[in-house]
Amino acid sequence: MRTSLSSHEYADRRLRVSSAMGDRHLDALCLFSPTQVNYLSGFAFLPTERPIALIYDAGHDRVTLFVPLLEREHAERASVDDIRTYPEYPDPLHPMSLLAAVLEDHGLSGACIGVDSDGYGGGQGYVGPKLSECVSAPVVPSRDLIERMMQTKSDEEIALIRQSLVWGHLAHRLLQDYTEVGLEETEISVRASHEATRAMRRALGEDYETKSWGHFTAQAVFRGQIGANSAIPHAISCGRPIRSGDVLITGAFSEVGGYISELERTMVLGEPSPRQRQLFELMVEVQDLALGAIRPGIPCSDVDRVVRAFYENREITAFWRHHTGHGLGYGFHESPFFDIGDSTILRAGMVLSVEPGIYVPGFGGFRHADTVLVTDTGAEVLSWYPRDLESLTIRT
Amino acid sequence: MRTSLSSHEYADRRLRVSSAMGDRHLDALCLFSPTQVNYLSGFAFLPTERPIALIYDAGHDRVTLFVPLLEREHAERASVDDIRTYPEYPDPLHPMSLLAAVLEDHGLSGACIGVDSDGYGGGQGYVGPKLSECVSAPVVPSRDLIERMMQTKSDEEIALIRQSLVWGHLAHRLLQDYTEVGLEETEISVRASHEATRAMRRALGEDYETKSWGHFTAQAVFRGQIGANSAIPHAISCGRPIRSGDVLITGAFSEVGGYISELERTMVLGEPSPRQRQLFELMVEVQDLALGAIRPGIPCSDVDRVVRAFYENREITAFWRHHTGHGLGYGFHESPFFDIGDSTILRAGMVLSVEPGIYVPGFGGFRHADTVLVTDTGAEVLSWYPRDLESLTIRT
Repeated sequence: MRTSLSSHEYADRRLRVSSAMGDRHLDALCLFSPTQVNYLSGFAFLPTERPIALIYDAGHDRVTLFVPLLEREHAERASVDDIRTYPEYPDPLHPMSLLAAVLEDHGLSGACIGVDSDGYGGGQGYVGPKLSECVSAPVVPSRDLIERMMQTKSDEEIALIRQSLVWGHLAHRLLQDYTEVGLEETEISVRASHEATRAMRRALGEDYETKSWGHFTAQAVFRGQIGANSAIPHAISCGRPIRSGDVLITGAFSEVGGYISELERTMVLGEPSPRQRQLFELMVEVQDLALGAIRPGIPCSDVDRVVRAFYENREITAFWRHHTGHGLGYGFHESPFFDIGDSTILRAGMVLSVEPGIYVPGFGGFRHADTVLVTDTGAEVLSWYPRDLESLTIRT
Repeated sequence: MRTSLSSHEYADRRLRVSSAMGDRHLDALCLFSPTQVNYLSGFAFLPTERPIALIYDAGHDRVTLFVPLLEREHAERASVDDIRTYPEYPDPLHPMSLLAAVLEDHGLSGACIGVDSDGYGGGQGYVGPKLSECVSAPVVPSRDLIERMMQTKSDEEIALIRQSLVWGHLAHRLLQDYTEVGLEETEISVRASHEATRAMRRALGEDYETKSWGHFTAQAVFRGQIGANSAIPHAISCGRPIRSGDVLITGAFSEVGGYISELERTMVLGEPSPRQRQLFELMVEVQDLALGAIRPGIPCSDVDRVVRAFYENREITAFWRHHTGHGLGYGFHESPFFDIGDSTILRAGMVLSVEPGIYVPGFGGFRHADTVLVTDTGAEVLSWYPRDLESLTIRT
């Protein structure tokens, strides 16, 4: 059971990046975002005030990590050819001048360098110059180069996303099992996530290593979408315990080899009221509509257009709050988007969420989110958790 | 028991921000970072591809939140005067042009606008212009304006940090109690964090609402710093179970009203070896040295200089990996830093970590981290967990 990407995958990424760089006449890349650094090297790290950069010299097919001393031994485990360190930030000698020296050392001072951002944007108290202020070489904004590549998942990536769904489903099942009147959301989600994480780690064995900092590698939560609060799509928490009659919106996932997935369900505690039933069924109907509209070769916007027309036709535009879905896999939100403004053409291998929601302020919210793979002929819904109201009603 | 900031605190922040803006001849602020938006409004949100901005018009003492439609009802709970929404991103009409229209609408098109970043830097698939490309007004980099203000904590902030330590200590106590040979780190940390979170939420009651997305509001973890892996200061995980003879580095905290604290300890499982004992005692000695060096009126660099001299004098510079500590409170890492490169003058009310570490590759790491308040006369160590080896040895 593979729980991380193979070295072949990283080699293949270099080939594809190198080819895309050729199209843009870039000699090197200098990447600062944790996501893009990880994509080319497998180096997952905690971002702090200390800049970390990856330099990819396409001509020599050489990947160099530039890290603070405290990450040296950690970086040695990544798929890289060379590691350069600086002592610390904010030491008197700024890391950006050392980074410029490393680029020069690599013979890249006259090269054309693509960047995901012009310098480190880390926050957490970091202050520093733009990279373009430190090197004489032209610095070309190129964040989209890897972002576009990330949109289409390889077979290995898809396998990790599928495995992520297995444990997300277990966490969600347990969350549903443990949901009871009078409990506070954290108690339920921690119990479910604890058990699912334990099962996952025991099943996958010691080869499994998380790429992220959380405790839980399998999680199921409510995030505050409880009762009337469920009408707030990105609520954060709800202090009060769960009551009979509450609509509940959940979320569950796990992380395998750095990849995640998305699974959200609307549940009702106690016998659903006629209005809850009606809104729930409307939501399932619009999600079906979106799922049925997905196929390769069309722009992402087409799917969202069908969905927005549904809200208009049913005269529920007042309850619309967000687009149909977003890319995901390495991150929770990635491009492309099922949004009327995104003309990206759907391609086989893209993985996106499909999650149109209906939000009635003061009453409740209704949203399922499923993880969907674009195939050669249409779409495969990778998640399999029941979507019908009967299965999602918790009897009190 | 107060578990969030009062409205007085937000009023006071506006006054201080307004005064600092006057010194810099700024008419308005336009803030994009979640931290800075929250600092002026109390609006805690999940950052996504959708830009969120806060506009502060000092002349009219007016705070406006600019949010996507899906955050409207959520934003209405924040301490703001006005909310403007845009439908969605990446809709055909880019949010940045709508934001420019809002600024114009507020009569700020000819104003001097300070920004924490020149446009939204959110990632997650967001692409957009700089703010300076959308408005005719001069846009002035001003990230440090609020960052500097955040360095000195108010009495209310200090009270929340103290309360955060209470539950961090409970989580750490339970982590130590539950650490046993043969267990995997996640099992121990999830059990301890679950119980501490439950106790915290039951004690603080329904008024308590988390400002962050995690499940756990009280946590204790190992983050992979187990056995030889403890020599990697920012390890992420360790697949293997805990064994007798392991050095373990922990971390514990909780979040109260958006504020956190820091507490880390080095523990030894089984009878400490002579070398473990020696390195542990050296680490405690250098931490004592750092704690003793803190007083208001001196630059932060002085404290780190004393610490680095210790490593040189004892000929253990090979085991040095990072500076002495960092500011914290709202974020886990904030300026200023106990670093030879940071000349910020220590002032009463600053809260920083003190955590010099000793890392012997292939053998183990040794680090305690305590949360320290700079007082009028010196420093108060806010954390109280035992620091001696006897208390931190887990007998097998």
